[in-house]
Amino acid sequence: MTETMLAAYFTEDNSPLEIRETAIPQPGKGEVLVKMESCGVCHTDVHFWKGEDELPRPKPAILGHEGVGSIVAVGDGVELTAGERVGVGFVYSACGNCRECRKGLETYCQNSQATGVHVDGCFAQYIVAPADWVTHIPGELSSEEACPLLCAGVTAFSAVRKANIEPGSVVVIFGLGGLGQYAIQFAKLFGAKVIGIDLDPKKLETAKRLGAHAAYAPGEEAEKAIHELGGADALLSFAPSPQVFRNMFTLAAPTARFIQVALPNNPFTFKAAELIDLGITIIGSADGTRLERDQVMQLAKDGLVHSNVETMEFSNINEAFRRLDAGEADGRLVVQF
Amino acid sequence: MTETMLAAYFTEDNSPLEIRETAIPQPGKGEVLVKMESCGVCHTDVHFWKGEDELPRPKPAILGHEGVGSIVAVGDGVELTAGERVGVGFVYSACGNCRECRKGLETYCQNSQATGVHVDGCFAQYIVAPADWVTHIPGELSSEEACPLLCAGVTAFSAVRKANIEPGSVVVIFGLGGLGQYAIQFAKLFGAKVIGIDLDPKKLETAKRLGAHAAYAPGEEAEKAIHELGGADALLSFAPSPQVFRNMFTLAAPTARFIQVALPNNPFTFKAAELIDLGITIIGSADGTRLERDQVMQLAKDGLVHSNVETMEFSNINEAFRRLDAGEADGRLVVQF
Amino acid sequence: MTETMLAAYFTEDNSPLEIRETAIPQPGKGEVLVKMESCGVCHTDVHFWKGEDELPRPKPAILGHEGVGSIVAVGDGVELTAGERVGVGFVYSACGNCRECRKGLETYCQNSQATGVHVDGCFAQYIVAPADWVTHIPGELSSEEACPLLCAGVTAFSAVRKANIEPGSVVVIFGLGGLGQYAIQFAKLFGAKVIGIDLDPKKLETAKRLGAHAAYAPGEEAEKAIHELGGADALLSFAPSPQVFRNMFTLAAPTARFIQVALPNNPFTFKAAELIDLGITIIGSADGTRLERDQVMQLAKDGLVHSNVETMEFSNINEAFRRLDAGEADGRLVVQF
Amino acid sequence: MTETMLAAYFTEDNSPLEIRETAIPQPGKGEVLVKMESCGVCHTDVHFWKGEDELPRPKPAILGHEGVGSIVAVGDGVELTAGERVGVGFVYSACGNCRECRKGLETYCQNSQATGVHVDGCFAQYIVAPADWVTHIPGELSSEEACPLLCAGVTAFSAVRKANIEPGSVVVIFGLGGLGQYAIQFAKLFGAKVIGIDLDPKKLETAKRLGAHAAYAPGEEAEKAIHELGGADALLSFAPSPQVFRNMFTLAAPTARFIQVALPNNPFTFKAAELIDLGITIIGSADGTRLERDQVMQLAKDGLVHSNVETMEFSNINEAFRRLDAGEADGRLVVQF
Ligand SMILES: [Zn+2]
Ligand SMILES: [Zn+2]
Ligand SMILES: [Zn+2]
Ligand SMILES: [Zn+2]
Ligand SMILES: [Zn+2]
Ligand SMILES: [Zn+2]
Ligand SMILES: [Zn+2]
Ligand SMILES: [Zn+2]
Repeated sequence: MTETMLAAYFTEDNSPLEIRETAIPQPGKGEVLVKMESCGVCHTDVHFWKGEDELPRPKPAILGHEGVGSIVAVGDGVELTAGERVGVGFVYSACGNCRECRKGLETYCQNSQATGVHVDGCFAQYIVAPADWVTHIPGELSSEEACPLLCAGVTAFSAVRKANIEPGSVVVIFGLGGLGQYAIQFAKLFGAKVIGIDLDPKKLETAKRLGAHAAYAPGEEAEKAIHELGGADALLSFAPSPQVFRNMFTLAAPTARFIQVALPNNPFTFKAAELIDLGITIIGSADGTRLERDQVMQLAKDGLVHSNVETMEFSNINEAFRRLDAGEADGRLVVQF
Repeated sequence: MTETMLAAYFTEDNSPLEIRETAIPQPGKGEVLVKMESCGVCHTDVHFWKGEDELPRPKPAILGHEGVGSIVAVGDGVELTAGERVGVGFVYSACGNCRECRKGLETYCQNSQATGVHVDGCFAQYIVAPADWVTHIPGELSSEEACPLLCAGVTAFSAVRKANIEPGSVVVIFGLGGLGQYAIQFAKLFGAKVIGIDLDPKKLETAKRLGAHAAYAPGEEAEKAIHELGGADALLSFAPSPQVFRNMFTLAAPTARFIQVALPNNPFTFKAAELIDLGITIIGSADGTRLERDQVMQLAKDGLVHSNVETMEFSNINEAFRRLDAGEADGRLVVQF
Repeated sequence: MTETMLAAYFTEDNSPLEIRETAIPQPGKGEVLVKMESCGVCHTDVHFWKGEDELPRPKPAILGHEGVGSIVAVGDGVELTAGERVGVGFVYSACGNCRECRKGLETYCQNSQATGVHVDGCFAQYIVAPADWVTHIPGELSSEEACPLLCAGVTAFSAVRKANIEPGSVVVIFGLGGLGQYAIQFAKLFGAKVIGIDLDPKKLETAKRLGAHAAYAPGEEAEKAIHELGGADALLSFAPSPQVFRNMFTLAAPTARFIQVALPNNPFTFKAAELIDLGITIIGSADGTRLERDQVMQLAKDGLVHSNVETMEFSNINEAFRRLDAGEADGRLVVQF
Repeated sequence: MTETMLAAYFTEDNSPLEIRETAIPQPGKGEVLVKMESCGVCHTDVHFWKGEDELPRPKPAILGHEGVGSIVAVGDGVELTAGERVGVGFVYSACGNCRECRKGLETYCQNSQATGVHVDGCFAQYIVAPADWVTHIPGELSSEEACPLLCAGVTAFSAVRKANIEPGSVVVIFGLGGLGQYAIQFAKLFGAKVIGIDLDPKKLETAKRLGAHAAYAPGEEAEKAIHELGGADALLSFAPSPQVFRNMFTLAAPTARFIQVALPNNPFTFKAAELIDLGITIIGSADGTRLERDQVMQLAKDGLVHSNVETMEFSNINEAFRRLDAGEADGRLVVQF
């Protein structure tokens, strides 16, 4: 193993990441060293880079939390072995022992760390990660396909799981980009009749190709069609607009569930009567558990969920950031090492 | 049976109800005739009477939906018999057959009728009601105690049931009037550690007497105490103020449930991040099902829930309305025939 | 409307049903008169006919509980109209008001009646049924396809719903005849990875055609394959053999659910340790609710579940009984009027 | 700290445990050293000692899995500190990372170890245990009270949690010894109406004192009383007799849940129709999770569950084993160091 590696350092808001040589980290007890093969670029990375979110540690820092590669070394007490392919997702580690962890709410662990946020991330040729927190990648999946599943995929899956869908449920999905496209596929796997809503006509076509029963721009046509189906049993928002939240009330069937994933800054408003008259349930959802990561990988392995991925060279990572920020990416962008 | 009865007619907004003589209605197929013994006066009645809510039928009209009395005649096909004591609550009837009814969501039936709202109510010496929709009143309960259970009691019970409480859960109840007092008792029956919040010091004392672990005015002391317990697992609002909704976010543990029952007119606001960071669930709740009415009556019969009732003569019904409107009622007011 | 109709009378155990002329029944209040178009023949009919189950009313009697036809007349208080196509399934009526009905457990109503069992059934040109209990048949479905869905289809669907399946769950289905074939399709709609088990090699092929991941005869190969998948999360038995119950323990993952639908006469045995060591849950399931009937019809309308139906003339009903009893029917037999 | 300790060694089936001097173990990374204050004696210990269950490791071996004491030393990476009082229960450790652990089913972890079974247990003055797996003991609880809660208490609590109890549910508890007495108290905390069943008249009195609505010997009187309540919604068996399983079917309401905890060797039998006609659910339950241990300690701290404990000197441990085996213990026996 060479003793240095290349890593992309975030040094200053909005400045190009700098690819530098640095020492390869070494795995401690319970840790593995992973040689990265590919890593997805996520809006979360871009938000930090643009200074829209503040990184809770000093720069320079390595971002990236959708990394897939092979184990090349392991610390003491690790049962995984060199050669196994694993993913490193957004939650880098949780304590396994606090009240939230004991409740199975590991994503709410008060002692958890996020990859690229609290510790160096996957935009580097090597990363050390806790053996208990890496995700097994089935052999049938390419590394680049697996990357966005670790973050966008599992976030969409967790949201859909919270929606209490059963075969025949009418499910409306707002925002048909990366997460929304995953959500369509997952909702279909639960047997739902899926309606997609987006302003972009191209995305409406994509939604139908992915199995949506119908797809509409927001407006009267959508409303009429959904009312004819008896209203929506579940509504999931991946579109960062408070207006979408208002539209949910218009389309809901009694006791509908709203699952909120998008994070617009502008506040949401509603009146108590809107909530109570229909017995609405509103749920906030983010990320997913290790179990959900495993489930997503199994579904992808079985060919039941597909990723729309475009690959770029690691050396072009700044171009990847630029394109994602400019909305010039059609699918998920993944850099390859 | 005499052929006429006395009934209190709502004739004009804010004018005294007029007690008039009118024909006793006759039960049709599947209906029972109930001779009223007592009927609770509810804020909903007062809202209609003051014109704050609009009655969906012409006046003069008989209000009242917390009535208890004895069956004196039955129509064809009814298995109940004269002499049985029954209650007539807010939902007068649902169709039993629409999509919502088939889902067990009878309180969201699109063909349902509300007592006193769509049909004449219980502020009369007799009422006809569907046999399938009256509630059996156990012999151990007095009629006046049973009255408020039919509306306030079952509304509080249904809200508490939606809160996913188990023994040891920390439950915060905002608003310690009639509904809140019931909610304390029910949450205790689920094993909760209950914290009451209200501005009125007298109600804080009542809450503790009813079994609350602690009771506070809104503010820092409450916040500190609840955080020391690890945050609230469930928060129920019976206080008609949007500020209470804001306070819920301050007190919530991860994945807390907010149950909204109070109906302030001013809108609620929140940011998506507040919902998502803690994985909050917000649920609207109103009224309850026939099953929940039966459950509440059983719990009251077994001495597990108590009502704070003040009785007045039916002839004083206008004084009851005035006192309820003026906030001069300590517990629930019930008129007796 | 003619005033008489033909009906197939069960007169004596094992004697041919007698097709006789009789008066067309008239719908009372809340009832509809349905002109039958087709009716499925079910093992339950054959069991009564052979005297293996005892009919709780005197003979001659009309059997049949998978009937589909068009409404030709309605009684008072019915909102359905002539011309609508409806199905009459096994539960003819429930009271809507007893404790079980109020709990939403209408199939356990203590006052319920079964079609063909407690009242005359659908092997007749006309039947009267309660308007609240007939099932709407979507225009996209043929009557003969709809028939077996009313009994076999809804029974399989209700069983699958109880299995807590989510995408990727490993579900083993024992017995791949009519119900098992429906169960495969429904489990797939919940996203399951389905394994079929049957002794008949032809049925194993059918199972795979219907979407099963794999299908095996009982034995070591099946066991090995299911263990490689991590064990079964849910196991459903439509095979009337106590041995199948024993096999479930061999194939189960921790906290697996066993759903028992088949009704062998021989007793089942197990040891407490078998149940406790893996935290197994065993659930008995029969029939389904009106809501489940509606769900099944929607799924069939959307082309998501298919029936394997063979039609015969009503005049050949005795041949249908003979073939079903002899195991000579490949799919579900439906007589046409 | 002294360098040797006393420990009770199980050397041969049915021979007295030998109290010997041995080296105090040292805590490794992630471990704590606990100085025992008291440890409960459990039937599981006696079964091993009598050779009825086989210990999966060589003798001499230290049994005991209901130990409470204070931390006196900690290994690397441990946040607990010397002086904290903790409990060591039956599950000594689980891996936190296998499929079952990721599902939150830590008690089914394929890599778990049991205290006293796979590793030396608590019948010693000191024990080393994983920091993540010890249970915090609130200051309000005495060590001897806490001991049986770690095993008998949490087993009863987990069983009651699986019973889907809500206020007013009718819950029948078979076997009113240690576990059954805890189960009565926990079921009451969920709001249940509890009926106790036992052959021993003294235990029936104890059950009523602990809050049971009624308590009966098995037989017609019990049956009549439970049927008058509408049948049992949940039935829990802590009595090691297959006959109890048969009795459950006699007493069940539709869709009742049977929770099986007792482990008789004789097989259980039932017919499919018994399960299906009432829609019964049968669930196996053992032990509980760390979360459930924490919940039980909180409930005990709040005075909501009480233990019936008799203390003995550690030097008398063989007398404790004898008495437990002979059925001469009234409550739970706890040895003190
Ligand atoms: Zn991401
Ligand atoms: Zn944690
Ligand atoms: Zn309805
Ligand atoms: Zn009211
Ligand atoms: Zn059938
Ligand atoms: Zn009923
Ligand atoms: Zn034990
Ligand atoms: Zn594990």
